[in-house]
Order: sequence, then C-alpha cells, then structure tokens
Amino acid sequence: MRSHYCGQLNETLVDDQVTLCGWVHRRRDHGGVIFLDMRDRDGIAQVVVDPDTEAAFATADRARNEYVLRITGRVRPRPEGTENPNMPTGMIEVLAKQVEVLNSAVTPPFQLDEHGKVGEEVRLKHRYIDLRRPEMIDKLRLRSRISHNVRAYLENQGFLDIETPILTRATPEGARDYLVPSRTHAGSFFALPQSPQLFKQLLMVSGFDRYYQIAKCFRDEDLRADRQPEFTQIDLEASFVEEDDIMGITEAMIRGLFQEVLDVELPRFPRMPYSEAMSRFGSDKPDLRIPLELTDVDDLMSQVDFKVFSGPASAADGRVAALKVPGGAELSRKAIDEYTKFVGIYGAKGLAWIKVNERAKGLEGLQSPIVKFMENVIDQLLERLDAQDGDIIFFGADKTRVVNEALGALRVKLGEDLDLYTQAWAPLWVVDFPMFEADDAGRLHALHHPFTAPSCSPEALKADPATALSRAYDMVLNGTELGGGSIRIHDQTMQRTVFEVLGIGEAEAEEKFGFLLDALKFGAPPHGGLAFGLDRLVMLMTGAKTIREVIAFPKTQSAACLLTDAPGEVSAEQLKELNIRLRQKAKPESAGE
Amino acid sequence: MRSHYCGQLNETLVDDQVTLCGWVHRRRDHGGVIFLDMRDRDGIAQVVVDPDTEAAFATADRARNEYVLRITGRVRPRPEGTENPNMPTGMIEVLAKQVEVLNSAVTPPFQLDEHGKVGEEVRLKHRYIDLRRPEMIDKLRLRSRISHNVRAYLENQGFLDIETPILTRATPEGARDYLVPSRTHAGSFFALPQSPQLFKQLLMVSGFDRYYQIAKCFRDEDLRADRQPEFTQIDLEASFVEEDDIMGITEAMIRGLFQEVLDVELPRFPRMPYSEAMSRFGSDKPDLRIPLELTDVDDLMSQVDFKVFSGPASAADGRVAALKVPGGAELSRKAIDEYTKFVGIYGAKGLAWIKVNERAKGLEGLQSPIVKFMENVIDQLLERLDAQDGDIIFFGADKTRVVNEALGALRVKLGEDLDLYTQAWAPLWVVDFPMFEADDAGRLHALHHPFTAPSCSPEALKADPATALSRAYDMVLNGTELGGGSIRIHDQTMQRTVFEVLGIGEAEAEEKFGFLLDALKFGAPPHGGLAFGLDRLVMLMTGAKTIREVIAFPKTQSAACLLTDAPGEVSAEQLKELNIRLRQKAKPESAGE
Repeated sequence: MRSHYCGQLNETLVDDQVTLCGWVHRRRDHGGVIFLDMRDRDGIAQVVVDPDTEAAFATADRARNEYVLRITGRVRPRPEGTENPNMPTGMIEVLAKQVEVLNSAVTPPFQLDEHGKVGEEVRLKHRYIDLRRPEMIDKLRLRSRISHNVRAYLENQGFLDIETPILTRATPEGARDYLVPSRTHAGSFFALPQSPQLFKQLLMVSGFDRYYQIAKCFRDEDLRADRQPEFTQIDLEASFVEEDDIMGITEAMIRGLFQEVLDVELPRFPRMPYSEAMSRFGSDKPDLRIPLELTDVDDLMSQVDFKVFSGPASAADGRVAALKVPGGAELSRKAIDEYTKFVGIYGAKGLAWIKVNERAKGLEGLQSPIVKFMENVIDQLLERLDAQDGDIIFFGADKTRVVNEALGALRVKLGEDLDLYTQAWAPLWVVDFPMFEADDAGRLHALHHPFTAPSCSPEALKADPATALSRAYDMVLNGTELGGGSIRIHDQTMQRTVFEVLGIGEAEAEEKFGFLLDALKFGAPPHGGLAFGLDRLVMLMTGAKTIREVIAFPKTQSAACLLTDAPGEVSAEQLKELNIRLRQKAKPESAGE
Repeated sequence: MRSHYCGQLNETLVDDQVTLCGWVHRRRDHGGVIFLDMRDRDGIAQVVVDPDTEAAFATADRARNEYVLRITGRVRPRPEGTENPNMPTGMIEVLAKQVEVLNSAVTPPFQLDEHGKVGEEVRLKHRYIDLRRPEMIDKLRLRSRISHNVRAYLENQGFLDIETPILTRATPEGARDYLVPSRTHAGSFFALPQSPQLFKQLLMVSGFDRYYQIAKCFRDEDLRADRQPEFTQIDLEASFVEEDDIMGITEAMIRGLFQEVLDVELPRFPRMPYSEAMSRFGSDKPDLRIPLELTDVDDLMSQVDFKVFSGPASAADGRVAALKVPGGAELSRKAIDEYTKFVGIYGAKGLAWIKVNERAKGLEGLQSPIVKFMENVIDQLLERLDAQDGDIIFFGADKTRVVNEALGALRVKLGEDLDLYTQAWAPLWVVDFPMFEADDAGRLHALHHPFTAPSCSPEALKADPATALSRAYDMVLNGTELGGGSIRIHDQTMQRTVFEVLGIGEAEAEEKFGFLLDALKFGAPPHGGLAFGLDRLVMLMTGAKTIREVIAFPKTQSAACLLTDAPGEVSAEQLKELNIRLRQKAKPESAGE
C-alpha cells in the first residue's frame, strides 16, 4: 500500500513519486493551502495539498487529527527559509496528487503532544492512543532490539531457547503466587511461575548444558515501588561452570548490548563483597556514580558521653556511621529537616549533623547540635573523615540495618538532589553474599533462594550457618539490581543440609521440592545461572521513569488493566465448573483504581 | 571445565589432550580394561581407562550408568577393526589420564535405550531423565533453531517483537478460559489469553505497523486429540496490507525455514477455495500427498431406486460422493469391515462399495452388495470415475457434513494404510472461507473469529450472511493446519454488523469488546495477520508423533504435570486471600492420571 515510511523521506528522493500511509499528526491551513504532518512508526513527513488538485484538496479538507490517510505525491525541497533542520525529513515535503481516507477518527481523549495534561489513568485506559506517541513507539522498538540482541548473543554462545511451563506448581521464591483453579482436578490449583528456576535446573540435569529463555514471571505482590504482577526475565543456566564463567558470559552480554544498542562503552565491572558494599554504601546495590561513602566511627563514638551514639557504637548489632558531603555546609536548616524526615522513612529516629565552617578554628569553627557531646573525639573524627571547610557530616546511629538503610538511601538522595554524579554508567558485581539472613525472631532465611550453593562444606554450613557465604552474584547498574544468580547446589546432601538449616523438614521438602531432590539423585551436573529483569534493563537503557513506560499494556498499582478492564466478573457456571465459589461478590468498581 | 563436547571429537584431534564432561552412557569391562561411553548434548565418545593409570582406573571402576564424570585424556585412533563408522566419533577414542566423579547417580527408573519398555507416565514423571535421550535433545534443539530462524526472518522484515499480557481479560476465541482469581479486586478474575488477537489489533491501531511475538496461549479444553492446555503461537500482524501481503510474507518464512533447517525445498503453495477443498477432499485441510479424491455423484444417484442413496442425493443438505481407490479390489472383507467401523466414528451409517474386477464384463465383472440397485447408472458411474480393473469404489451418502467428514477421514486413513503418498511435503493455502457456519439450531457462528473481515459490504453481509465469504486464509501442510489468519475488520460499522449477525447485542459487544470498538473509532488502519501453531510446526518438522515430544515439560491428557505433581492443593489462607472457597475438597490422587 505504501512506497516509503514517512520517516524515510529525504533529499535523495526529490522529484520521486511516493505513497505514504499513516495518521494525520497535525493539520494546518495556510494561505489557502493545507499542510498535513503525516505520522507513522518511522517519523513525520510534511504533505502539502494544493487547491489545484481538487479531489485531493477536498479529501484533505475533511481530514482531522488522527485520520488514517493514504497519500500519493511528489517529493520536493521545501521553499527557502521553511526548512526544519531539527526534523529528519525537514528539508523536503510531499506535494499531494491523491489523498485517500482509509479511516476516520473522532477527537481523541487527549492530543498526543498534550498527553502530560491528562492523568496516567486516562492514558492507560486509552493505551492504544498513548502508544502512538513517538517516544513510546521508540521505547518499545528499543525493547525489541534489546531482546533481539540478547537472543543473538546467547544463541551464539550455544544457549538453547527452551520454553518452560506457565501452568505449574508453586515455585520457591517465596512471594505470593497467582493461582489457577483446575477444572479437571477439582480442588487443585496451578501456580503461575515466579521464575523458571526449578525447570532450568532440571534441564541441566537432562544435559541441555546451556539454556536460556526470555520468560514471563508472576508475583502477586502489593505493587508499591515500581513493580508489575507479570514481568519478564532474561533467564539462563549452564552446566559444568563456575562463578567466573557465568559472570564472564553475562558481563560480555551487557557490555555488547550497550555497545550495539546505545553505542556506549561500559567500563569493566568491578567486584565488591557484600560486606564491603554494606559498610561503605549501606546497600547491596550501591550506586557508584555518587562519590559519597559511609565511614565507620563505632570506635570513636563508643567513647563519647552521648547514649544515642555510644549505645549503638558499643552494641554488637549496632552501628554508628558518618556520611561526609563536600560543600554540604550550605544546606539550609529546612533542607536538613527534610532529610531528617526522609531518613525517618527508614526507621532512623533522627539525623545528627556537623557543619564544618572553619576547621582551623576547632570547635569554634563547627556548627552542630551534637558536637558538644564529642569534644573528646572530634579531632580524630575530622581527621578520619578528612573534613574540609564547607563540608557537612551526617550521622546514623542505630541498629546496623537501620543505619545502612537510612544513610544508604540518604546517600542516593543527596547524589540526586545535589547532582553529584561522576559518570553516566556505573556497573558492578556484588559477590560473597551471606547464605542466610536472620529475621527479628532470629529465624534464618535464604538471602537468595534455597538452591544457591554455599562456598563451604555441608559440615561447615551446619556448624555456623550465620556466617556462611554463598556462591551468588548480583549485577548492579546505577544502583539498580539488573540481575542476580548463583552456582546452584547439585549435591543432594548439601541440598538437604540447606533445607535443614532453613528449618524445612524432610516432609515439607519432599512435598514442595521432591522432584528436584529426586533429580539430584540421578546424576546432576555442577551448574549455575543468572536471571535479568528485562523490564528494568529496558527502563535504564531508554531512560524511562517507570517500567510502565516500557511495557506495552501495563497494569496499575492495584494490578488492574484499565484498558481491558481486567480483572472482571465471571459467570456462576464458570465458577461451578472450577469447583469454587466466592466469599463476597465483586464490587462493581473493583477493577478500577 | 571441558575442552570439547563429546560429539566434537574426531580424527583431527588425534594425539591432542582433551577434557570431557558428561554422563556415563554405557560402561563395559573388556580384557581388564574399562570402556566408558561418555555422553553430552552433542554426542557420545568412547573413553578407555587402562589399569596402568591406577587412580583413574579405580574411579572409573566405581562409575555406573548416568554418573557425571570429568575425564582428561589423549585422543587416539581406535585399533584396527574396532572402528565404528556409524558413529560420528567412531574412528577415535580417548585414553583417560584422569577421571573425576562430579556426581554419582542411583539406578534410573529406566535405561535410556529401553525407554520404550516403560509407559509414558513413568517417563513424564521422570521427564529430566527422558529428556536425556539424544532424540529428545535433538528435537528441542531443533525447536530452538526454528524459533531463532522465525525471529530472524520476521525482524528482517521489520516486525517488532512486542509482549502482550498473560493476565488479561477473556478473549474471543470461544474456548473455555483459564481463570486467575484477583486478590486485590475481590470477586474478579483475570483470564489467560487464548491468543493475543485483541492486543495485536490494538498495536496496529497504535501504529506499530508490524508486530510479532512467539506467544504462550491457553485453552482449558478437554484434551482429546493431541492438545495441550498451554501452547505456543508464532503470532504476527501488519498494517496497510492485504491478503497477498500476509500470505507472501508467511509463505516465504515457512519455505525459508524448511530450506535452512531441514534443507528441504518446498514447492510453491497452491491456493484452493474452501468449497473446492470440501468437495474434492471432504476437508478444509486436505492432505495433498494422497492421490485420492471424492467425486460427486448426486446427479446419478438421485435416479437410482435405492432410498439410502437417492434420498441424500436429492436433499438440499445431502450429498452422495464416491471415493475410488486404485488397486483397492484386493482389500479383504475384514479390512472393509474395519473401514466401515472407522467411518462410523464420523457418523456414517455404513460404507457401500463396489469392487471392479473385470469392468469389460459389465455387471458380471463387479462385486458389490449394492450394485444391483444402480444398474441404470452404473456405466455412467464407472465412466465418470474412470474405474479400472482392480479398483474399489467407496460411497458416502448422508448429510453433506457427515459424508465429508467420513470420506475425508477414510481418504486419509487409506493413504496411510496403503502408503499412497506421492510426495514428502504438500503445502497449500485454503482461502475463501465462509464468514459463518450454522449450528444444527441454524444459529450462525464465526468460522474463524468475529474480527475477520468479510469480502463484501456491511449491507451485503446483512442481506445474506450465510453465503458471505471472509478474507481469511489457512496454511495447511500434509493435512495439518499450520496456521490461520485473515484481514481484520478496521471499520466500526462493519464490526457492529458482524456482531449483529452473530446475535451479539450492543450491550454484550460493549461489555466484551468495548475497548476494541472504541479503538476502531480513533483511527484504525487496515490490518491483518496470521498465527502459526509452533508446537505443531515443530512436530511436523521433527517427525514427532505427538506434540508432547516437542515440549520440554508437557501435561497429560487430563492437564496434569506428573513431574511437579501440578495442579496441587493450596492452603486455606491462600484461598481466603483470594476471596474464594472450594465446593469440594481436592481428591488426593487428583493430580494423577
């Protein structure tokens, strides 16, 4: 139907006849002539319809925004002075011979270039219009290129694309499962997978050696943060490998991806132990673009006569850390109050600070509500922090977890607010994670999942689980976890030991993961893998604000699709067939916000 | 960990040191020496372990079938006379220096080369072992290549890979939906998509122009036939196209696929109207490898004094057809009785036949229970069928639907039983489908789906829906429907007309497809597409007997996964969160067969 996409037109086509198909992006009448900006997925071209071509003019005259037209005409240079160098097609225009209306359009609920004026709800309800915005088409096109690039690389590396089931059994990630009632097995339910973890391990046991899949995963969580009930993973697993193999393959994949898709040369990925990341940045996914660090001052603060500090400084599970912000002395009292509120979100009871106005003057030169308590250590403190005039020093003093979360978040916020970024992209590997973390009740939980291999023997693990490290690795980019993985347990004794430490009894283990434990008996190879969050990767690479911008048909925070009005009510017969009944009727507005 | 895959070893590596990782496929002791056939995904290599290498020998001596070993040794030619030319690695062997046990294995529930001796249930329960069979690995590897090839082609053609939701709203295919109770919207349910149909049409409305996806689809049907509750579609859609565009793109895709993956040059795809396919082959997906055809004999049989024939021959909804089988006169009475039973499955009340022993002798030369009724037309009949000595002629006389189904199926069965195939691959396009088919109550249903464009105007469609043709096309290969598609309705008046004809009221249309009808208002381009069944395509290309052989983790006929024991029971708390309760408890064996 068309000879060219609108965006493809340029000077080389001058005097050629072309046929375009697309949408009226804008229509202007000027000096008795009609100007149509015709839009398709490749761009926008200016079409001129002259009254001399009567039929064409009459048709163009009826056309409104978002009408679908087919236009044949001749390409010509734009008249002197009317060129638009900011537009790829800005040097030429098309003089229309024929204009055909392929479909009309009523006035859309919002104009594409005014999408900002309507709420996201309106745009989600009319997603098919919102997706017409060139920046949305570009984001999804880039997503397609990213998937393509990843597939090409992995297939090149000998990974086989193998599909795993969507209708399956509860998986071990521990988040809430989406359930699907079975009609043929009354009273039983399928679960939608939170990841293909168990299946990819079974594929290794089968000898496929290298597996990958761009897989849909599902978690029925409360969607605070920027989450979606269904999300996409780049999932891979390989046999007869160790950490360096998987990390090498995937680092090369991401570096190649940035090179080919964004023309960005990423630096080599440094590796940082979990413990170092927590103590220096208060986070296991530190944003290394920000040149601020936490400094331990327990030894000093344990000596001060100020319980708020000396308490945590001396407690085994406590921490006192300082965060020095060069030039931060200029922060207003109001700004500091804001930051105090901010750290409150993470459980910090306050935010102590010292402004270094003139260090040479000693205490005189410092401004702070707390410095009076720490005269005895102030010199050592400023020494250790290498404090300069004009700096501000923030303090966190509390349980270690609270201090890390509060100062870790404050560090990121300060980096944003004061625009301290030293580079555009800061990737890294975080390694040497603990196998387990204890909840407040002291009960151990797997930091990743219970199939992660420890870096010690079963005996050592049993002897001191709390300090055992795992063979897991996370890839972090600009403070976002792009992906995580590990070498898995391939030895059934080790697997049973881990379940034991987690307090998962024989029976429960059998019931939940019996088929995996079985599989480990029949000749399981050493194996490991990694899974990337594709939505997040695309979001970072496209500079999108939320993952909703890089998903064609996303759901709202309340897990609803405003476009199709899903979820919806179903008939009594359907429920009966599925052997279930409702506890309470659906509220009519249930699928709304 | 390895230097080569087992299957990669050959004469060029003689005297090289190699390291292999894999499974003990077979172990033989011979003259005090241990022979290990080591298997990985690429093949099998023979390893010799000599008592001189004591440590290696001791380890190899413990090894049993399916142990996972790492072996380092030197490649050498096999001794004179012990070569195995049937094996890619048959000219060489590896003399082991080191043998390391990476994992042990208990005796598997079945030996790989004896999988035939156990039922499919045992193999599905231990799928990870069944998948170790080289032919299974090859099938899934070919599937991976097919997906890769399809993606490469479509992306080359400018199609964008765009993901559509899995948690969505009931789709219009009309089969039973899988439902997912919503926790956040009590009493409401998501449906798993039977296809991305509506979303891909919305993507066209958005202007993506060319979309594709290898998409998971779901149907909660009774799995007679060779079906799976979740299956995979190669789904595509394009804007500003007509039938020839989509058929051209997809025919080229399939021909390229066969060329590159199987090195098979498919013939050009002939096009056949639905009506012709039904009358000549009694099927809308005829297997053209079989040189048998149905011949209409209504005009003759309406003249015979034999109600069983003259009735249907004269009835508007009846048909009498003949199926001539060259050389079929040799069929035994017993065989014919079998075929009579067979057509009974399709509702045929009997299977009349005439054996042509010596046509020259006239009636004398014919053998048949019914020929006596048709003396008056027998010469014309034999003439029309060009009957030769040794032929058998079968008859179907009943309602047209019954005759087509019975003789259509008989034709295929005879082709199989008598191995009449004239070629390996017989593709074709079936076109000019009716828009609707009437059920026995005379109610009209969409033959494809209600978004298929008719080839006539809304007025003509309303005037005589029963005879209206659609712009749909099916791709058929060897009697299997590989894929189906159509040009869609992009005009809302036409869409409403179709709903009207189908007896879908305004309200119901709004409720079910309101968002699509809306979208058609805002500037929908002409568009069309096609969807292939990937599982079936792979099955045909790998020569598999069932689609279960080309799916890594398939479900049983009762939609259960014997490996993970899904579906399974869930806790009362989970159900409560989902606002549902059971009508009856799950039977403990519910997830079994």
